[in-house]
Amino acid sequence: MTDIKNVTVAGAGVLGTQIAYQAAFAGFNVTSWDISDDALEEAKKRFDRLDAAYKRDVEGTTDEDTQGARDRLTLTSDLEEAVQDADLIIEAVPEKIDIKKDFWGKVADAAPEKTIFTTNTSTLLPSDFRDATGRPEKFLALHFANRVWSMRIAEVMPHDGTDEEVTKTVFEYAKEMQMDPMRLKREQPGYIMNSLLVPLLEASQKLWITDVAEPADIDKNWKMATGAPLGPFQAMDLIGLRTVSTIAMTKKDENVKKFGKYVMENLVEKGKVGYESNEGFFRYDDDGNRLDEE
Amino acid sequence: MTDIKNVTVAGAGVLGTQIAYQAAFAGFNVTSWDISDDALEEAKKRFDRLDAAYKRDVEGTTDEDTQGARDRLTLTSDLEEAVQDADLIIEAVPEKIDIKKDFWGKVADAAPEKTIFTTNTSTLLPSDFRDATGRPEKFLALHFANRVWSMRIAEVMPHDGTDEEVTKTVFEYAKEMQMDPMRLKREQPGYIMNSLLVPLLEASQKLWITDVAEPADIDKNWKMATGAPLGPFQAMDLIGLRTVSTIAMTKKDENVKKFGKYVMENLVEKGKVGYESNEGFFRYDDDGNRLDEE
Repeated sequence: MTDIKNVTVAGAGVLGTQIAYQAAFAGFNVTSWDISDDALEEAKKRFDRLDAAYKRDVEGTTDEDTQGARDRLTLTSDLEEAVQDADLIIEAVPEKIDIKKDFWGKVADAAPEKTIFTTNTSTLLPSDFRDATGRPEKFLALHFANRVWSMRIAEVMPHDGTDEEVTKTVFEYAKEMQMDPMRLKREQPGYIMNSLLVPLLEASQKLWITDVAEPADIDKNWKMATGAPLGPFQAMDLIGLRTVSTIAMTKKDENVKKFGKYVMENLVEKGKVGYESNEGFFRYDDDGNRLDEE
Repeated sequence: MTDIKNVTVAGAGVLGTQIAYQAAFAGFNVTSWDISDDALEEAKKRFDRLDAAYKRDVEGTTDEDTQGARDRLTLTSDLEEAVQDADLIIEAVPEKIDIKKDFWGKVADAAPEKTIFTTNTSTLLPSDFRDATGRPEKFLALHFANRVWSMRIAEVMPHDGTDEEVTKTVFEYAKEMQMDPMRLKREQPGYIMNSLLVPLLEASQKLWITDVAEPADIDKNWKMATGAPLGPFQAMDLIGLRTVSTIAMTKKDENVKKFGKYVMENLVEKGKVGYESNEGFFRYDDDGNRLDEE
């Protein structure tokens, strides 16, 4: 058992609210902080939708369970108040280095000595802004995947100056939060999951954009060969094609870049963004089942 | 329905015998050719093991079914005899360009005009040796994956001079052979399957050899993230670590090369080659179930 009781989740966007809800659902006292009251109004709507998602997707969840989670959740836009009793802070503020540095600079002064600092950054590394925390030895990454209530992986990634005991505590805390944590021994851009997934997706993007094979055949091949429930093109529809194409356009590989541009112009800009719009590379019903599968 | 009735499979190694057996099992008259009587003796043992594999793994297979397959199979080391009535030749001779060229040069003269030529090459492209066939327009790749009786993918890959009607016929034939064929629109090294799989495996190799995470965590992450039954390290144990490490050592990426060398010295040379030896990255029982999984 760790000593962690009070958890502050900074940033109440899509992932921040999911992380906060899951921590509250697991029994922690959770403070959800965001920068303005408007942002908190949006957060409330997200928490309402999470009540429904847990009742729908997490087996055995009762009204009492979701009510309990909501009772343990406090919303505030006052940063000092948000961090004053925190045993652990999970930062999920926008993915820009200056915003992160500014946030941690303020928290460094306001948080008590005991507080462990973690970041949910996806594209940056803890070492990119550890100095701003004022306590790099108590700082590391605790990374969640979208749809926290069903994808229970938490990647625990220290930088080379993180105290080993702190890393262990965060690992144990992730279990207490009902996640299935995975330890990275050192910093790695993309953690484990994206380090594996991105090369697979890019390989599929290149096969299609260079006219070797069609998405349906590529997905069928992958599913037959590996037994996986989804092929790479359906996985991209699930992730969302706006995200997928935006990222692809930033890559060096000419074919990946070309793929990104093509998808943006021919699918995203025509409203075909994947599961969310019931159409992307494939067509889906509202439950995400493919309608055009053989 | 195609007009194909007589199929000659050239090369009676691991994959050649599997292809020949599957074609015979599906009702074709099959000639299995290899270069010497010694090779054919080995082939007979392989066919005996395939009788057992089909009865074990292919649901509903009776003694009559496997006997029927064997009755339709003829073995010969006489190449002229092997190809004289062939509607289709599937070449699975050793993966060396000179051996392939020499083989096709002989067959070009001996086979009747009607015969369609296909190659099961994995690492070469049809265009690398199409000229040796003397009939490039009737020549393309028909590629099978190991364990043909359970992995029913056949990748149909024409070169840019293959007659479209011939490609369609081979595609239909693959279905008649009870495969689930996949069409590639143009030549691609690694076809679809390996074009996707290799980048995933190399990404996992790099995460481990650069000390980011352990095989068990990497596999667990991949399985949780994608719902796939196997992670990349277990997949490598299944493929066989001798093959995996030998290929990795030929790559340009320094970390992939280092992975290959490490695995060769620390696993393969100690007899830990994967499923086949019940131990590789993980330990297995005789049915390939992991013994050390959480």
